Amino acid sequence: MTSISISMYKLTSLFCLLVISLCTHAQPNTTRLNSPEILLDNSVVFRIKAPAASNVQVVGTWASDFKPVPMVKNDSSVYEVKIGPLPSDMYEYRFIVDGVFALDPNNNAVTRDGIYVESRLLLPGALADVIAAQDVPHGRVTAVWYTSPSLGGQRRMHVYTPPGYEQGKEKYPVMYLLHGGGGDEEGWINRGRANYIIDNLIASKQAVPMIVVITNGNPEIVASPLDRPLKTNSKETPGIGGMASMRFEQSLVKEVVPFIEKNYRVIADADHRAVTGFSMGGFQTQNITNNNPGMFSYIGVMSMGLFSSFRAAPNTNYDKDKHVAQLKAVIASKPKFYWIGIGKNDFLFETVTKLRTLYDEVGLKYTYRESEGSHTWKEWRLYLTELAPKFFK
Amino acid sequence: MTSISISMYKLTSLFCLLVISLCTHAQPNTTRLNSPEILLDNSVVFRIKAPAASNVQVVGTWASDFKPVPMVKNDSSVYEVKIGPLPSDMYEYRFIVDGVFALDPNNNAVTRDGIYVESRLLLPGALADVIAAQDVPHGRVTAVWYTSPSLGGQRRMHVYTPPGYEQGKEKYPVMYLLHGGGGDEEGWINRGRANYIIDNLIASKQAVPMIVVITNGNPEIVASPLDRPLKTNSKETPGIGGMASMRFEQSLVKEVVPFIEKNYRVIADADHRAVTGFSMGGFQTQNITNNNPGMFSYIGVMSMGLFSSFRAAPNTNYDKDKHVAQLKAVIASKPKFYWIGIGKNDFLFETVTKLRTLYDEVGLKYTYRESEGSHTWKEWRLYLTELAPKFFK
Repeated sequence: MTSISISMYKLTSLFCLLVISLCTHAQPNTTRLNSPEILLDNSVVFRIKAPAASNVQVVGTWASDFKPVPMVKNDSSVYEVKIGPLPSDMYEYRFIVDGVFALDPNNNAVTRDGIYVESRLLLPGALADVIAAQDVPHGRVTAVWYTSPSLGGQRRMHVYTPPGYEQGKEKYPVMYLLHGGGGDEEGWINRGRANYIIDNLIASKQAVPMIVVITNGNPEIVASPLDRPLKTNSKETPGIGGMASMRFEQSLVKEVVPFIEKNYRVIADADHRAVTGFSMGGFQTQNITNNNPGMFSYIGVMSMGLFSSFRAAPNTNYDKDKHVAQLKAVIASKPKFYWIGIGKNDFLFETVTKLRTLYDEVGLKYTYRESEGSHTWKEWRLYLTELAPKFFK
Repeated sequence: MTSISISMYKLTSLFCLLVISLCTHAQPNTTRLNSPEILLDNSVVFRIKAPAASNVQVVGTWASDFKPVPMVKNDSSVYEVKIGPLPSDMYEYRFIVDGVFALDPNNNAVTRDGIYVESRLLLPGALADVIAAQDVPHGRVTAVWYTSPSLGGQRRMHVYTPPGYEQGKEKYPVMYLLHGGGGDEEGWINRGRANYIIDNLIASKQAVPMIVVITNGNPEIVASPLDRPLKTNSKETPGIGGMASMRFEQSLVKEVVPFIEKNYRVIADADHRAVTGFSMGGFQTQNITNNNPGMFSYIGVMSMGLFSSFRAAPNTNYDKDKHVAQLKAVIASKPKFYWIGIGKNDFLFETVTKLRTLYDEVGLKYTYRESEGSHTWKEWRLYLTELAPKFFK
């Protein structure tokens, strides 16, 4: 029952005009192309119209070396290239047009992690089925501001509550999920797809329903670029002062965990707390659990080993005796599950070998996962699909 | 108390190496430039390094005609241009590099509305102070999935709850905030900054605390591109079949409002319900209130007038008698506040003139706001800063 009846034909015209009008600042690339086109064998054809460009490439996370692939111009000034076949997964990619990055103008699925804003490619199959939104019950993701006296002022985090949380009275376990250097509290949602991964794992009964808390691990930065209180623009990049300061780690233990346990229906004991993170977040995971033995029974260290063994961070000032004493306290606290994962091509691979040697020496038992990839979200999403089912069981 | 003590110096090295490693797919533009640089008078200098490009422009929402501005290459292969001074506001912009759009690689503040992914520029001053995140109490924004039997399956919306909602017992009024054609349930958050605008207006006591519900107004599309259950990629663009089908409007009235009133602490009467939206959402606002007189006491029609009077949608099939009867029912329901806003340079300006003529003829009283701009987010954010304070008072 429309109050104003207008035929579909006219609506089409109106919509086109609306779009054209909105596109008045869209002089380039108004031609819609099929890009990325996914072929039946999971090969992908990328296309971009660029009549005035002299060199166009595509670069994506399907190759560990991130080598740009040249594209070939066809008669319609469309640059094209076919990649793959590739395994089912989520990938990020961009074009490089005469030396400058460009999103795929024909793909409105875009993700961001830190300064990396890229087009999203999802290749159907088993892994995509776990990563992508499916027609299963969805938990809620809430952007929550909390007060951190130790870091000063309000900070933003994301809290995932599992399907049914708001209607029920049940108490849930909590996973604290940490991001890497340069990232923020949006990474695990925006690029990591943590909420859909957990939705899917709960729906298939591989994981138990849980709350997931995704913080901003940079002590000097309160929120992602768009969400910071600013007088000017958001060009601030994460300082590294915080990385070894332990200020985030202390804040998580003394402020974030109590906030969550006060404001959400959680089971507030070690056996219902998990902490995991990648890269900087893997370092923080070690710091948090080493300094607070018995607080988290489930621990996952992704893509980060013995930090001080990294070639750029030699052992000066590294206090092995102290580290060993901490690990012994961790052992004494009897964590239920300790996991270490690293990609074969990760530039931090050696640090993990060193960490494992130390753990073996000290007698800290852990599950070790060695994957094929490198230091990218492909690994971290994969790890989450494997880790979450191990937690709270 | 770090478990692994490492000097700042070494951390810096590590961080740089981490960044370099992550940048292995970042061959272009690794040089950090100051862009956008905001000068004291709110002029802005845009910069992008593009040694291999032959033509670089910048295009942004500061001009109604969206005319690209040529940039000039300096000795370091950096293209630069100074724009402005410009009034305090939030703007979106992109570079055009040899005919292809590119984000500003030195600005990690990026917003999206539909297919438009653009860099964000925030120019300090009075308006930016209302639009940007400030250090005031923040409400929470939750991505909520709800079931829509009429549209089929689960759909995603955003719900803003005002500061203190989760801790208190108070009941709140609700504003339903609708987006335009091509948009989705992220637009008013991502680009519209509705949650921060409302935070700021509540903090300054200009608006009363309220819940804000931001739906996806495309009946055929359940969620934003990244969040749709998909077997392949998210290239689906909003069909226009839904635009005159009234299916979204009916779903909002019969499904969304009851869901909100059941699941949130709201005052469930007309005097505590507002509905407003722009462009397609302004058409939907008219449809919803015309077909349900007495349901919403606060009504705001942004950047949309008499739809059938648009040059692309001539009057065939338009039933003026029916429209007049509906408007008389609206008048009889005594809405507390009816608002119409349009930019002087909006391509739909004439449709608003026609709508006002009809309202004047029928005797429907409204507040009229004519702003300087066109059919862009600059107007819609501005309108929200002006409208929200008028609601529920």
